[in-house]
Amino acid sequence: MEIIRKNFKDSLSTVYSAIEEADFLAIDGEFSGISDGPSVSALTNGLDTPEERYAKLKKHSMDFLLFQFGLCTFRYDQSESKYLTKSFNFYIFPKPFSRNSPDIKFICQSSSIDFLASQGFDFNKVFRNGIPYLNQEEEAQLREQYEERRNQANGAGTPSFISPSSKGPVNVPDEHKDFINRVIAKVDSLLSNTEKTVDLEPCTGFQRKLIYQTLNWNRVDEEERRRREHEKQEREQEELNDAVGFSRVIHAISKSGKLVVGHNMLLDVMHTIHQFYCPLPEDLNDFKEVTMCVFPRLLDTKLMASTHPFKVHNLRRTPSNLPELVRPYFSDGFQSYNTATEQLHEAGYDAYITGLCFISMANYLGSFLTPPRSHISAKSKLIEPFHNKDHVLYVTFPKEWKTSDLYQLFSAFGNPCTCTSCFLWHAQN
Amino acid sequence: MEIIRKNFKDSLSTVYSAIEEADFLAIDGEFSGISDGPSVSALTNGLDTPEERYAKLKKHSMDFLLFQFGLCTFRYDQSESKYLTKSFNFYIFPKPFSRNSPDIKFICQSSSIDFLASQGFDFNKVFRNGIPYLNQEEEAQLREQYEERRNQANGAGTPSFISPSSKGPVNVPDEHKDFINRVIAKVDSLLSNTEKTVDLEPCTGFQRKLIYQTLNWNRVDEEERRRREHEKQEREQEELNDAVGFSRVIHAISKSGKLVVGHNMLLDVMHTIHQFYCPLPEDLNDFKEVTMCVFPRLLDTKLMASTHPFKVHNLRRTPSNLPELVRPYFSDGFQSYNTATEQLHEAGYDAYITGLCFISMANYLGSFLTPPRSHISAKSKLIEPFHNKDHVLYVTFPKEWKTSDLYQLFSAFGNPCTCTSCFLWHAQN
Repeated sequence: MEIIRKNFKDSLSTVYSAIEEADFLAIDGEFSGISDGPSVSALTNGLDTPEERYAKLKKHSMDFLLFQFGLCTFRYDQSESKYLTKSFNFYIFPKPFSRNSPDIKFICQSSSIDFLASQGFDFNKVFRNGIPYLNQEEEAQLREQYEERRNQANGAGTPSFISPSSKGPVNVPDEHKDFINRVIAKVDSLLSNTEKTVDLEPCTGFQRKLIYQTLNWNRVDEEERRRREHEKQEREQEELNDAVGFSRVIHAISKSGKLVVGHNMLLDVMHTIHQFYCPLPEDLNDFKEVTMCVFPRLLDTKLMASTHPFKVHNLRRTPSNLPELVRPYFSDGFQSYNTATEQLHEAGYDAYITGLCFISMANYLGSFLTPPRSHISAKSKLIEPFHNKDHVLYVTFPKEWKTSDLYQLFSAFGNPCTCTSCFLWHAQN
Repeated sequence: MEIIRKNFKDSLSTVYSAIEEADFLAIDGEFSGISDGPSVSALTNGLDTPEERYAKLKKHSMDFLLFQFGLCTFRYDQSESKYLTKSFNFYIFPKPFSRNSPDIKFICQSSSIDFLASQGFDFNKVFRNGIPYLNQEEEAQLREQYEERRNQANGAGTPSFISPSSKGPVNVPDEHKDFINRVIAKVDSLLSNTEKTVDLEPCTGFQRKLIYQTLNWNRVDEEERRRREHEKQEREQEELNDAVGFSRVIHAISKSGKLVVGHNMLLDVMHTIHQFYCPLPEDLNDFKEVTMCVFPRLLDTKLMASTHPFKVHNLRRTPSNLPELVRPYFSDGFQSYNTATEQLHEAGYDAYITGLCFISMANYLGSFLTPPRSHISAKSKLIEPFHNKDHVLYVTFPKEWKTSDLYQLFSAFGNPCTCTSCFLWHAQN
């Protein structure tokens, strides 16, 4: 399901219930670039310590925009012994919602843009129709602005038509009483619907002030005032929700506490937190803590595939020859991806494929049980050892070793893959 | 005329001859943003000295991409007493042409992107079909790479199949002579067209080396070798031209020495030089020198409009009520812009409108002559005082003055406009 600015609000309940009913979620992001400094291969060099890798990515990757977010939800249907999936492909763009809203600058990397262009990526959908978002601080600031304005309107502040020295109305001087009474008569006539428009006589600034205060204090009864206040608050809440935009989807994923699966997902997680929650902390341990708060259960299929018992298992299988049993079916009304005609690098499809890889590996664990089981739930204890692993492959090795030694060491289960967006079957080639 | 990667090469001669025959050229650029630091209004604050303004724009504007370039050529047709115009709208993108080519990073500013999106700007045309370009240093580097490779192929270097110690071929050892003769027979048969493919026996690295040198030295006669060398050079020259891409249009404008007109053109000129010639110098005077080399005759219609005798002249005229006399006609095969349905912020249209403003002001100068003249040529001496003015409005004023004093001073001929892309009639409102 493609979700852009126009259909976002109407689709939100569908997204929420898909998350709510899911056994696990798979995510994937597309970015406007990878590295604004070192080459991509140097940036994702498999030999860095986790601290080094985190620091490099934080420094050189966070100014790019995550502009397409794929979410695929998987729910196991016991009666059919199959997964039911719903795939969402969100286009995201920080459209400024007012003159005072943050005017985000982001970097584009020509090679990444050119690559996405070659895959048929639709940039107009991002820039014309992308869903806006706010991080938590921006949301809090906007909420504060609305509250301040509301307090002012309720007389707590000092709006321009109330004299700072007196909170109440000033007396209407005798020489202006006729004028004000004429205005009241005209407005009464407007409110009682005998007139459709009202033409006021030209007046001075002081007379205008008298009109405001008279109409404000006299014309609207208390109940009507409360009703209007309530309407206004609802309108403001809706404006606020619109501005928070796509971040609400991430909040829902976070709140669900569901297992979130990604492939080589470090950059996805970093961008998601950076863009929709808060600027990334300096320290890797602080980042891990923030991550645990936002996504309590994460699983990286690339790391899982490089861990016992998968690292010796031949996982060269491509999605098109996944066993029939594993293949999920698509919920009604949802775009069905055909794995024979790959749509790699559309985030929704990539999330879907990542989910398939996870299902395949989870079920493989079932083959070790006595008796073997063909389906292993995402909530199974068997999966837990793969949760929340370091997002970086940390290799300790004698200091006199060279890169070539490491590559040789790893060659038994495939070269360490330095590509940040490749898939399982690439990683294993 | 819309020009993208696909039709660029075929359109180039049309562009060249339009420039060649023109009396003057108008240009305009669209960028991926304006400021990565201060707000746009602070960046283009009319009260800065030229040095300050140049330094600010160089620091905060040059990392954006000029991704649409409008060129409108104007040729005066004496027999019709009208201008003939040709308008070109180029989409530009630094698509990497090989693995080793520069991987340009550029910034996008959400408010600028959102503004262009609201004007119907087609981002897919930029990112999927934009014409590549190189600056002069990149072009020189690429040319050098080609030359190095050519020298290597001609034996001046040390390609892998020639032993470093001997430039000539090694002798074919007796035990390999049969093998080599069989290969020669097969290749001869291929060349004489009795066979369509050639299957070589499996061979060792040394045998492969023998094959290369034998075929290289023996099979091709001198004339054929020269023909192929020539073909290869032409192919390389074409590859080089493709990589230089859009920069060739700027080179042609520069080489023509024609008057180049823009509206509020400082940013356009800075981006054009930065993107297609060289990184901008630190110092404003050096920048002016570079600019004089690239564009020997520049005229800014916004500055012209704020100079005697225009600053007291009512220029609130919009393009739709330009006198009939001024309105140019469009050459056959060229998109005709209808000034009634404005297409503001398409670079080709903006360049066209800028040209109209210039014609209107140039002709107004003719009204001061005795007898008055209705047409003043772009080459007239009357225009020369407006050439190559500082690109910044430098106001000297007593140090105790405040901004409000300056605004009041200028109010007689409109507020100093701080918008970088507005037009004459906005500037004068």
